[in-house]
Parts: sequence; structure tokens; C-alpha cells
Amino acid sequence: MSGLSVAARWMAAAGGEMLAGTRGFATDLATVSNLRAVAPRQNDRVLGLGTLNPRVRATEYAVRGPIVLKAGELERELRQGAQKPFTEIIKANIGDAHAMGQQPITFLRQVVALCIYPELIGSPDFPADAKERAQRILQDCGGHSLGSYSASQGLYCIRQDVAKYVESRDGGVPVDPNNIYITTGASDGIMSVLKLLLTGEGRTRTGIMIPIPQYPLYSAAISELGAVQVNYYLDEENAWALDKSELRRSLNKAREYCYPRALCIINPGNPTAQVQSRKCIEDVIHFAYEQKLFLLADEVYQENIYAEGCKFHSFKKVLYEMGAEYFNTVELVSFHSTSKGYTGECGFRGGYMEVINMDPDVKAHFEKLLSVRLCPPVPGQVAMDVVVNPPKPGEESYKTFKMACNMAPDMFYCMKLLEETGICVVPGSGFGQKEGTYHFRMTILLSIEKLKVLLQKVKDFHTKLLQKYA
Amino acid sequence: MSGLSVAARWMAAAGGEMLAGTRGFATDLATVSNLRAVAPRQNDRVLGLGTLNPRVRATEYAVRGPIVLKAGELERELRQGAQKPFTEIIKANIGDAHAMGQQPITFLRQVVALCIYPELIGSPDFPADAKERAQRILQDCGGHSLGSYSASQGLYCIRQDVAKYVESRDGGVPVDPNNIYITTGASDGIMSVLKLLLTGEGRTRTGIMIPIPQYPLYSAAISELGAVQVNYYLDEENAWALDKSELRRSLNKAREYCYPRALCIINPGNPTAQVQSRKCIEDVIHFAYEQKLFLLADEVYQENIYAEGCKFHSFKKVLYEMGAEYFNTVELVSFHSTSKGYTGECGFRGGYMEVINMDPDVKAHFEKLLSVRLCPPVPGQVAMDVVVNPPKPGEESYKTFKMACNMAPDMFYCMKLLEETGICVVPGSGFGQKEGTYHFRMTILLSIEKLKVLLQKVKDFHTKLLQKYA
Repeated sequence: MSGLSVAARWMAAAGGEMLAGTRGFATDLATVSNLRAVAPRQNDRVLGLGTLNPRVRATEYAVRGPIVLKAGELERELRQGAQKPFTEIIKANIGDAHAMGQQPITFLRQVVALCIYPELIGSPDFPADAKERAQRILQDCGGHSLGSYSASQGLYCIRQDVAKYVESRDGGVPVDPNNIYITTGASDGIMSVLKLLLTGEGRTRTGIMIPIPQYPLYSAAISELGAVQVNYYLDEENAWALDKSELRRSLNKAREYCYPRALCIINPGNPTAQVQSRKCIEDVIHFAYEQKLFLLADEVYQENIYAEGCKFHSFKKVLYEMGAEYFNTVELVSFHSTSKGYTGECGFRGGYMEVINMDPDVKAHFEKLLSVRLCPPVPGQVAMDVVVNPPKPGEESYKTFKMACNMAPDMFYCMKLLEETGICVVPGSGFGQKEGTYHFRMTILLSIEKLKVLLQKVKDFHTKLLQKYA
Repeated sequence: MSGLSVAARWMAAAGGEMLAGTRGFATDLATVSNLRAVAPRQNDRVLGLGTLNPRVRATEYAVRGPIVLKAGELERELRQGAQKPFTEIIKANIGDAHAMGQQPITFLRQVVALCIYPELIGSPDFPADAKERAQRILQDCGGHSLGSYSASQGLYCIRQDVAKYVESRDGGVPVDPNNIYITTGASDGIMSVLKLLLTGEGRTRTGIMIPIPQYPLYSAAISELGAVQVNYYLDEENAWALDKSELRRSLNKAREYCYPRALCIINPGNPTAQVQSRKCIEDVIHFAYEQKLFLLADEVYQENIYAEGCKFHSFKKVLYEMGAEYFNTVELVSFHSTSKGYTGECGFRGGYMEVINMDPDVKAHFEKLLSVRLCPPVPGQVAMDVVVNPPKPGEESYKTFKMACNMAPDMFYCMKLLEETGICVVPGSGFGQKEGTYHFRMTILLSIEKLKVLLQKVKDFHTKLLQKYA
């Protein structure tokens, strides 16, 4: 096979629609290797499309593609006074709550501001609990400054708070703070863990099982690392539930061309918003145990469950309840983030992961790997701390904090609309509305045909929502 | 060759001392491939040493190894009241100015605090220029909140400020803000660029030229990516200067076993503190041009030049002055950071890179790659903004800002001592001292023999310093 025909085949695979199976083959290293051997032409740039890392080239990331770049451009033009058929860009491409008008939680911002500018600790405008929290965190920082590098694993006192949070969330299942790693958002943690798992060549190459539909970080990371993407399909007919027999089908097929080593779960689902039942999680864990798969549980939406009858079960807790044989052997990493939940602090890039049953030797290498990036951003670590350790009853900030976490009905409506239909509108509260009334506002930019489709979706959503909650 | 003997050879290469050339061979993918094919034993963990990504396993990172992990442990024990033969840990392992007692720059912290907690904009305790700056930045944030994701390339107004800074630093050499990318510290940027360059197989595998001694991020990144490390030696006899003939020797040798595509320069040197002359930089650029090498210029210490007669010349500026043939063709990325300079804000993980002559198609893939991580932490972006756009004469914060940037003599002494000898002591100002007197404080933990060596180094440094400045 000539270099060129391989390249053409590669580009077709990367540029076309993602199809199960074929994409897995496209990222097979054997194909990539041939492409790599194409030497750069003499008068070209050192780094051109022909010499670009083929894995980077093949990586796709739908959430922030050309559309979003264009949106940024348009926004700048609008600010500079350009006339357009619309006056603002509404970004429904990514879960970015603050950009959508959600207000930050005061207590969180106060603690971070106090850590950053400790002179404020003398100010009467800050509540005592925020000051105490900031002082406790600064005590753990080199030179008592947020400007110092933290340990690569994160500040110890924050890892302690995360441990307590997870323990209490899971009804007392024990947590070792040494298994908690603060991350630069969940994406960073997921990427680091996947990196560990990459090994083998050809048919022994690591396969990573991911749900379809997925959050495209997974396909991008797998492509960037040169692993093999193994798709399992969520059941749209059954509210996007995960089915064990589909896992088995997917695994068996994948074993024909790679070595599946890890199973990624997104619960609550992204983009499906499906919340897995306890039984489903048990099935998945049993499957991972039986098939020797490393589990990655993306649980960043664990605080965003609104539907009645739905309850979040953490993989950690279910694993524990399945007994020692499971709890002491199944390798699991769970991810959380400051970007979702009631805080929606995306810009801070805060997150953590809990690592369970990781081989101690591997753990040492993992910590070395993390240390190359020095440490997660410390302001994001502080934000994570407030997420896992909010004000408690009796503390000065408790009351306002609780109020802020209960979402206003219009925000709830818009959030659900976005999560369930991908349509992004703005809650009326951002524009002002009579107390007790709720609105949303949408811009109308589409052709009549497309608008009809859009409005039908809104109508279906609205009807469904009323059935559920009215 | 059996899997086992390859594994043994690999471990020896990874565990032993770094030797030029042999290490390059060790990271050759052919070797790695054989190792990868070792399947996991049945009753083992899914992820054990035998199945760990061999590149991760081979990665070394001296700055934050077991010593630093141990230091963190000891610190915690001391805080919990444990009795040790010393009362604090002094970390001289990494350039972490705040942990060393350097005070943050007030203006920088004010601007970040205002952005995080905009309620402070009404406070009379903040200067008008800090408020204006915060408002300008918030204007650029989604929902006017630091909690929104920024563009993956960074906030536009901050990239504009970086562009102006670089332009003025380089005496007017033009900068396009679209070539500026805000990063999560310089490490993140360097890693991303190296990732682009990885291609080929066996003898066409990408080689990356790095100085020896180097900052170990480079060797770690190269190992993690599976590229080939190509060493060029700095001339210790000549104050660690870079010699063009050594570049040529190194390149020619490397071409026997890999495809060298990039040349990394650290200027001012880390750990050597050597400042390259303009002539030297011209030589390097000419070499890169002639040999078709992609240039990475790590210029994070550009503001930390204290020695008389030394001046920082940016690669960008020298490239420009060499004329259009060079300026329009040589591919260069320059890196800067909030962690060094007069700010020393490491914990914020702020940085930027300027990308010159990058192929537009590659740039599109680069932006896609960056977008997978969503965006650099926004508080770090704000810190970067203040670094590149400090208060100007006439503005309210100008005077105090200037004072803070002029390092106190004891801080200067300790900083130089650290940079030139690696010995980390604490400036007297951290303990209090009579005005006009300067001290440093060191802890004495070593054996008599080692202490003699240490004190001799301090003495030599002191004598040299007095010769230079007294």
C-alpha cells in the first residue's frame, strides 16, 4: 500500500461521519505508522500537514470546532459595533452555565477572592466562615500564597475535604485522601488516566470502550493517544439506557482487532442526561470485573439531577455494596468537576478524581506523570474545596448559599431544555420579569424550515415537561 | 529478542543515568513496540507495571520526584507537631518564589480578586486602575463571569495585551494577537507544540534537540510522547554557552538514528542561568533555517536578568532583524509564564506562547487540539494580563507596583544564590531585620563533609558576586 493511498484512506476516515467499528480500525497504529513514514518535501515548512502528528490530525472535537471559532469572531465584531441580523451570540455548544447568565455562588467567590488577596481578611464585608476557610487553605500553601505551586496531587487540606465529601455522599464508604487527586477540570484527569492505559501494538493495542453518543473529549483523547475507540451504543428507545448485552456485543467484536482494557461510563449521561439505575451500575461493575476492564466513571453531572424518581448512585458506593471481592479488586477512577453542579465554575478549571484499587507501582508512575505539569491551578483547587465543603447549618453563609443553589424555575426550564434538546435559550431572570412569573427568551436566526423543526422540538419538550412536573 | 530481555534493557535505560545517544535509542519505538506486546497475566490487575504505558514508565521528572513527595509528607508531620531534627522544609527543588517568601504584587492580586468577586468594584479600598482593568477583562468573559469558559486560545483582550507587550519589548516588531495563545503555564504550551511535531517511525521518528543540562520537562515530555531525545551539550567551561559546532555535531549524529525536526532553546538558561548573546541567537536561527528545524524558545526567565552586561534578546526580535528570508520562513514558538519574572505567580498556571510562521493548516489542527482541554484557567489568564500590562506612569497603582518589582537586596542575593548554585536559603526580610541591613537564613541539616562543600559554594558565590557588584 503506498503512503498516499493510506493517507487518503486516513483522511476519509477522519473527515467523514463517525461510524462504529470503522473508526476503531482507522486509529489502528498499523495504518498510522505507514502514514508517518511520509517524509516532508524539501521546500516545505518543517511542520506542515504532511508532517503533522497523524494522531493530532485525526482528532475530532465537535464541541469546539470551527462553529465556535466563528462564534467568537462574530462576538468581537458585534462588540465593535458591526451590524448583523442578530445582536448577540448564544452559545448552546457547551455546558457553560455562567455564560448563560447563571450567577456565581457568593461564598465560593468570596473564599477564592480572600485567598488571592488576603488583605481582604481584615474587611468587614466578608463573612467569618469565608475568612476562616481562606485562612485554612492559605495555611497549606507554600509561603501562605496562592502563587506557590501546590503538590502535584493538590493541596492536602482540599484533598481531605474532598475525601469527607465523597465519604458523606456515599453514606460512609471510606475514602483515603491519598487516593484523591485534584485536576485541571475533569478533562485533564480523564486524559491522564487514559494515558496510563495505552499499550500494545496491532491486535494487542489498547481499546477503550465508550458510550455512543458520548462527550467528544473521549473520542478526541483516544485519537490523540492512538488507542482504539470501541463503541457501545446507548438505547435511545429506552431513554438512552445502558444495556449489558450491548456491552458484551461491543467487547466481543472489539477483541477481534484490539485489546479492550478500559470501559468509560458517563453517568449522568452527557449528552443524553440519562441517570443510571443502581441495577444498571451493578451490571456494569460485574461486567468490568468479569471481563477485566479498568473502569472510568465520569460523574461530573452528579449534582444536576432534577427529574423525580431519579437518584444518583456513585460507582464507588455500588462497588462497595457489592462486597469485598469487588471492592478490593475492580479498578475504578471517578471524576468530578467545578464546572457543573450548582456552581458551574468552568473558567477555574477545577476538578478531582478518586482512584480505587490502582496498583501502587502504577500509582507512583501516575504521580510522576502528573508532576510533569507541576500542579493544577490553585484558584481552581480552592473553588473545588467550596463545592465539596459548602457552608454548614449555623455558619454565617449557610442561608444565602442554600438559596443560591436552588435554581429559579426559569433557569431550571432553560437548563432542562438545553440538556434535553440542545436548544439554548436565556432565562427571563436575566432580563427582568414580574415576581412569580417566568419567561425565556430566544433569538430567531434560522430559515423558516429549520425554525419549524426547532419549535416542534421546544413544543415536544414542553409537553413532556408538563406531563412530568405539572 | 524475547520480550523479557527487551524489558530489562528498557528499564536499565530508563532507570540509569541519562546518557546522550543511548537514551535516544531507548525511546525508539521499535523497542517500545516489543515491550508493549507483553500481555497482562491473568490474575493481575488490569493496569499493572507490565501493562502500564511504557512511555509513561520511562518518563523521568527530576524536579518533582520521590524527594519532593517525601518533603510534602515531612511538612505535614511537622505541622502535626512531630519532632524532627529540623523545624521546616526548605524547597530548593523548583523556582517557586512565593514559597520562598516573595510577596505577591498587590496590583496583580487586586485585579484577579476584583474579577473573581466583582462586588469589590464598589469598594473604596481598591484603586481605580485595578477596577478598570477588571471591568475590561470581565467585559470579555461570557456572562461577564470568570466562571465561564474562555476561548481555547484565551480571552481576546488578554491576547491583545500580550501582543502589545511583545511588540514593545521587541522595539516594534509586529505581533498578530491571533498568533498569541494563552496557556496553562509554559509547560502546557511546550507539551502541546511538541505533540504536533511527533511523527515517523524508526529512523524517521521525530528527534527533538534539547540542551544538556536542561529543565527536565523536556526530557519528560519527549519520553511521554515517544519522540527521540537528541542532546546538545552546553559548554560549562564557557559559562554554559551554546556552541554552534556542538549543535552541528549533535544533529549529524542524531540523523543516523532519527529525524530531528525541532530544536529547543532555553534562554535565559535553566538551570544554567546563562544569557545568550545576540550573536549566539543569530547562529542558532541560522542553523535552524539551514537545517530545517522547528524552533522552540523557552524564554520564561526573560525578566530575571540581573547580571551587568547581560541583556535579553528575544528570538523573535533577532529573527526579525535577520531579514525577510528568515522572518518569513523560520518556524518559531516562544514561551512565557506568570511563574517567573517579578511576579512569580506559579500557582495560577498562567502563560502564553507566540507562534510564528506556523502553517495555517497546522494551526487549525493546533487550535482543535487545544480546544479539547477547553480553555486555560481564567484566573491565570488575568494574572498573565497584569504581567504583560502593568500599571503605567500616571496611573494610581504605578508607584507601588514599581517599588514591588525592584527586588530587595536580600531577595536578590538569595535568588542569585539559588540560580547560580542551587542552594536555597531564605531572605532575612521574611524574618524581620533592621532597616538598611540584609541577611539570609539557612538551615543546617547536612553531614560535616557535605556542609563543607556547601559552604565553599556559598563562599565562592559570595566572592564572585562582590567582584561583580561591589
